[in-house]
Amino acid sequence: MRRVGAEANQRGDDAAERGTVVTPSAEFPPLGPEERAALGRIGERWHAPRRPDDLPIDPTLGRNRRRPAPTRFGRLAPIEMFTVEQPDELVATAPARLPGSRAGRMVTRLRRALVGPPLSSAAVLYERMRKLVALPILSSDLLSSVAYGPEAMLTVLVLAGSSALGLALPLAALLVVLMVAVGLSYRQTIPAYPHGAGSYLVAGDNLGRTAGLAAAAGLMLDYVLTVSVSVAAGVHAVTSALPGLAPATVPFGVLVIAVLLAGNLRGVRTAGNIFVLPTYAFVAAILAVLVVGYARAAGRGFAAVPPPAVPAAEGLGLLLVLRAFSSGAVSMTGIEAVSNAVPAFRPTEWRNARTTLGWMVAMLVALFAGLVALIHLDGLVPRPGETILSQLGRVTFPTGPWYALLQATTALILLLAANTAFNDFPRLLFFMARDGHAPRRFLHMGDRLAFSDGLVALAGAATVIFLVFGGRTEALIPLYAVGVFLAFTLSQSGMVVHWRRHRGPGWRRRLVLNAVGATLSGLVLLTAAVAKFAEGAWVVVVAVPLLVLLFRRIHRHYATLHRALALHPPPAAGRTPAAAPPAPAGSAEGEELPQEVRHLVVVPVARLNRASLRALAYAASLGQPTLAVHIAPEEAEADRFREQWCAWGDHLRLETVVSPYRSVIGPLAHYLEALHAARPDLTLTVIVPEVVLRRRRHRLLHSRAEQRLRAALRALPGVVVTSIPVHVSG
Amino acid sequence: MRRVGAEANQRGDDAAERGTVVTPSAEFPPLGPEERAALGRIGERWHAPRRPDDLPIDPTLGRNRRRPAPTRFGRLAPIEMFTVEQPDELVATAPARLPGSRAGRMVTRLRRALVGPPLSSAAVLYERMRKLVALPILSSDLLSSVAYGPEAMLTVLVLAGSSALGLALPLAALLVVLMVAVGLSYRQTIPAYPHGAGSYLVAGDNLGRTAGLAAAAGLMLDYVLTVSVSVAAGVHAVTSALPGLAPATVPFGVLVIAVLLAGNLRGVRTAGNIFVLPTYAFVAAILAVLVVGYARAAGRGFAAVPPPAVPAAEGLGLLLVLRAFSSGAVSMTGIEAVSNAVPAFRPTEWRNARTTLGWMVAMLVALFAGLVALIHLDGLVPRPGETILSQLGRVTFPTGPWYALLQATTALILLLAANTAFNDFPRLLFFMARDGHAPRRFLHMGDRLAFSDGLVALAGAATVIFLVFGGRTEALIPLYAVGVFLAFTLSQSGMVVHWRRHRGPGWRRRLVLNAVGATLSGLVLLTAAVAKFAEGAWVVVVAVPLLVLLFRRIHRHYATLHRALALHPPPAAGRTPAAAPPAPAGSAEGEELPQEVRHLVVVPVARLNRASLRALAYAASLGQPTLAVHIAPEEAEADRFREQWCAWGDHLRLETVVSPYRSVIGPLAHYLEALHAARPDLTLTVIVPEVVLRRRRHRLLHSRAEQRLRAALRALPGVVVTSIPVHVSG
Repeated sequence: MRRVGAEANQRGDDAAERGTVVTPSAEFPPLGPEERAALGRIGERWHAPRRPDDLPIDPTLGRNRRRPAPTRFGRLAPIEMFTVEQPDELVATAPARLPGSRAGRMVTRLRRALVGPPLSSAAVLYERMRKLVALPILSSDLLSSVAYGPEAMLTVLVLAGSSALGLALPLAALLVVLMVAVGLSYRQTIPAYPHGAGSYLVAGDNLGRTAGLAAAAGLMLDYVLTVSVSVAAGVHAVTSALPGLAPATVPFGVLVIAVLLAGNLRGVRTAGNIFVLPTYAFVAAILAVLVVGYARAAGRGFAAVPPPAVPAAEGLGLLLVLRAFSSGAVSMTGIEAVSNAVPAFRPTEWRNARTTLGWMVAMLVALFAGLVALIHLDGLVPRPGETILSQLGRVTFPTGPWYALLQATTALILLLAANTAFNDFPRLLFFMARDGHAPRRFLHMGDRLAFSDGLVALAGAATVIFLVFGGRTEALIPLYAVGVFLAFTLSQSGMVVHWRRHRGPGWRRRLVLNAVGATLSGLVLLTAAVAKFAEGAWVVVVAVPLLVLLFRRIHRHYATLHRALALHPPPAAGRTPAAAPPAPAGSAEGEELPQEVRHLVVVPVARLNRASLRALAYAASLGQPTLAVHIAPEEAEADRFREQWCAWGDHLRLETVVSPYRSVIGPLAHYLEALHAARPDLTLTVIVPEVVLRRRRHRLLHSRAEQRLRAALRALPGVVVTSIPVHVSG
Repeated sequence: MRRVGAEANQRGDDAAERGTVVTPSAEFPPLGPEERAALGRIGERWHAPRRPDDLPIDPTLGRNRRRPAPTRFGRLAPIEMFTVEQPDELVATAPARLPGSRAGRMVTRLRRALVGPPLSSAAVLYERMRKLVALPILSSDLLSSVAYGPEAMLTVLVLAGSSALGLALPLAALLVVLMVAVGLSYRQTIPAYPHGAGSYLVAGDNLGRTAGLAAAAGLMLDYVLTVSVSVAAGVHAVTSALPGLAPATVPFGVLVIAVLLAGNLRGVRTAGNIFVLPTYAFVAAILAVLVVGYARAAGRGFAAVPPPAVPAAEGLGLLLVLRAFSSGAVSMTGIEAVSNAVPAFRPTEWRNARTTLGWMVAMLVALFAGLVALIHLDGLVPRPGETILSQLGRVTFPTGPWYALLQATTALILLLAANTAFNDFPRLLFFMARDGHAPRRFLHMGDRLAFSDGLVALAGAATVIFLVFGGRTEALIPLYAVGVFLAFTLSQSGMVVHWRRHRGPGWRRRLVLNAVGATLSGLVLLTAAVAKFAEGAWVVVVAVPLLVLLFRRIHRHYATLHRALALHPPPAAGRTPAAAPPAPAGSAEGEELPQEVRHLVVVPVARLNRASLRALAYAASLGQPTLAVHIAPEEAEADRFREQWCAWGDHLRLETVVSPYRSVIGPLAHYLEALHAARPDLTLTVIVPEVVLRRRRHRLLHSRAEQRLRAALRALPGVVVTSIPVHVSG
């Protein structure tokens, strides 16, 4: 276990060095120095029995001579599947991606129609953002939160009756303090981790792997909920303006998630121009609401309109206040976006990122505080069917298109906020997969250079959550805060450790600032988890440890696999075995040197026909010792087969196994196992003809013995299975 | 098409010669004379490049020296998996059947607990039956029909009111004539087809393949319905005596089918002693009812008790009478049983079979006519909830245990009748599969020597029918007659053709008798199909042609496959290609002679690790020309890999293919296809390492590239795939 931990730490350092750059080569990690050395030493001992280097064919396909390409597609014009770029290297063209089967090609065509033609790896964008562009891109998630954050807080407060609404102002003041503290705390993280300061990285680097994974789990839940909550709130913004659409909330929301998925599978880049306008428009719209609203309030001498009387459903206890506070804290979701994206800024990256973060927090504070105070002044109360922002809009702009514009920009920025999660979730999975904490498939960039698997996973999870909660924003809010504040707390606690370790100039001041941020975040986390436990927070409280366990299990599996497959230097002749590194798993089967492979070719023959004769001919042509095996159900059949074998000429040694219980696969597998047990140094190559049928339905008519035999032999050590395809067109 | 037909006819003759003997060797059909000759000529031209005959291991596993057997099961005592019976031949013991995987062994153990230990092929019984034993075995299906036949007829008649019940006597007389005619007709079939005179065989032999298949389809439906109807009627016999059980009809019936399936999977032999007692007991019980009943009727001077007044629901039209007649005709189902079982009699088989048939028909006529007349005399009317036989029993035996005994024997014989279908259905499928008209899996005898697949198919179909019709006998009857009488008609029409062709002594008389039988059966068939079309007979009218089409399609597939795989003599050097037989499908891929195989070994390498180095070593050790291929997502990765390759020592030719769209399988498959297109005479052997994971859930963490590559390469001609397993324990 220690070793795995050490390895993980080392990997963590690697990750820090590799930063947050996303590349298609991540699927092919380079060899470590130890492995490279082992590779060379293994290569030195390699002796092929015959040098099998003289190829009967030009592997570059004689491209220089322009032969016609294969015509599997039955087209007349030859398709250039490959082009030659340099000697010994071909480059596949787009048609070479196409699967060979008709069904596969149809799926490909359908997908292309939906998400567009494939993009070359060379098209990966390493675009750098100006601050004025970065601001709207990175702030859409954060600023859109004010569309539901104040309402979430008031919805809880009003449970204690309209008199309790007065508590909104002090709670908002507390939240502003929190925002500033967390904002300052993140400001310090950015220069410390200029290659990317995501919570997963910072927590993992400073607090250990489990903390990093917990932060990642919290963030993953956060991203899923961002999609669900933003889509729910956006749909609510629309249905507030057009109440007739309210019954279609759920299908509409699912449709929006599907469109977001399709757009992101197409690889909608985070190109600024999509984001700039709606974000600034939203900010402008809210500012307009505030200006007009305060002007009207000034008209009546800032006298608060008394809210309509709402009967108290619960007593005004501490728990209720805490719930209201933690519900309001969801306004801060998305504050971490800048720290993930540091390398995407123009140089000096950390400085520009830090400035952008400052602006963002300032805007958040202004919008949030302004809205809460104005709602109080106008005496508005949350009510089902219409968002409080919509009520405010109707009060502020009783006439004209301004109300409609407010609702439209609100819906749009919420959509963009959801889209942000579609950018961040697969990236997080990519980094986790690179460290072996998530399935390796999340490293793979689809043909549009998007992380298709991650996108699909996010859309699926968000849809499930959206459906389970019926698309109601207020039902989703209790789950939301826990994951985010877990990530905040861990990231900032990590920074505390970081300052203690690195002790740069002014480290004490920084440590205190991060400690304040961590403490406040931690308090909100605790508050949210405890106060809203019964309302849904328990889901997150349960899910985070389970996810961490899952990530650790995945890592353990990959680590085992890596140890089993990694190259070890061959034991030197002079060293005693004890001094050699511990024998890796699976070392008993064969060796990595051709001169050490001893062959026995085994051909199971059920009946003599073209398929089995082809298998026998293939086996004999290899020139290795060959044995044919026939499994007979009865003595009489065995005799008949032997007689046929002699009629053929008895060219190969035949062993007959009578299986009086009529099973074929079991006795054959046991026979091969017995051969292997008798001579474990032999590599048994089992050669089976496999009848390939063109139509899938015809497979029902066959026992598929080849597949069953392969499955039975998979578990046996040292048994190689060779399939000779026999194509039958009928 | 002509050729296929001719082949089929020839096969039909073979089948006639092979008769109805069931053997486990049927899965391994012997070679035809032409194929044998081709085999010898192919063998003469066989020249292995090196004689690969000197084996590094004793293939008899050194049994004479008593080595310890493999200990895969982790037991201490060595298990004898194989015993040596004669040189070059091992015999697998029972443990060798066991699958290697833990899950597989558990399934095996469970099955063994349910159906018992496996039976050796040597245990196939070729038992011959005495007439007194054969009679109850073969007649249970026929005689049990009187338990529901008369009632089925009366149920239709009573729809026209109680006055119409008087028609029962003339209809019964007509049915008796029909029984005698069909009985006589079958009496003649038996000596003509002493190896088994099933309708499938007789109709196929004389009227052509389609007629045989139609008869088979009719019989198959008949067998399925025999199970459903007999179980429904048996359950009804029980619920008539114990009305409290009536609500449990459906689950009870399904349970009975399941028990029958389990019993037959155990391989309940058609041992006489199970059948003798219930059949004779049933006959005795009915005879007792008749004797007592007629004695009571004689006491009142054979005056008929007037039936209770039942209002007419329909007018008494011709259609109603025809429906009543065809419903009554279900009393004859099972009359064909003897003709299927001729070879099971003691010699002289046909004579004993014929005598038995005579007795059976006589008993049927006596029971059927006696029951109909007695029901009439006692003025009984069918009513829901109680069978008419039960009513008769209550009237006849008002006191004492006799009534209960009658119901018990009725239920028992109906169970046996259902069991008969479990014997006949899989046998019919076996014969059809032997001719290539049914999936070959129906040739396989399970480990209890039963045709497990056929049994499961029958039980499944019967359960579905039983459930769809809610276990009501009267709802099932309309489907029943059509299939049976289709088989009767085709079989006896076939005999008419037979007599015309063979013209033995007295052929004219025989022809006339069979023609009468065929005509009468045909009339009943028409009557049943038309009169009961709307009530359910349409299902059969639609199903039979569809089944025939399916059987023909299956046959066509197997015929194509056979042509593609059958051995053809190699074209002689002197002959022109035109004179040679038409080139069989797939002849382009490789040859059946080792000296004609030219190799190119291709090793796709994604990264250098133990798995890929093992694949490379295996490839090089074969001593054939070898090419390594690397698919890179980017130019940079390709350069990095080439550099690693040189660090290893550049022992093999490496070709790099850059796949800018990041897909691996597609470009690799297309590259191999291009290689094959350039040199179609080469056999490409693709060597792929396959990481074998012990836990199934871990497979989710891997892209399973090996399987996907195999699937993509399956369609390519001339590409052989070799899997090198790499076992990882974690």
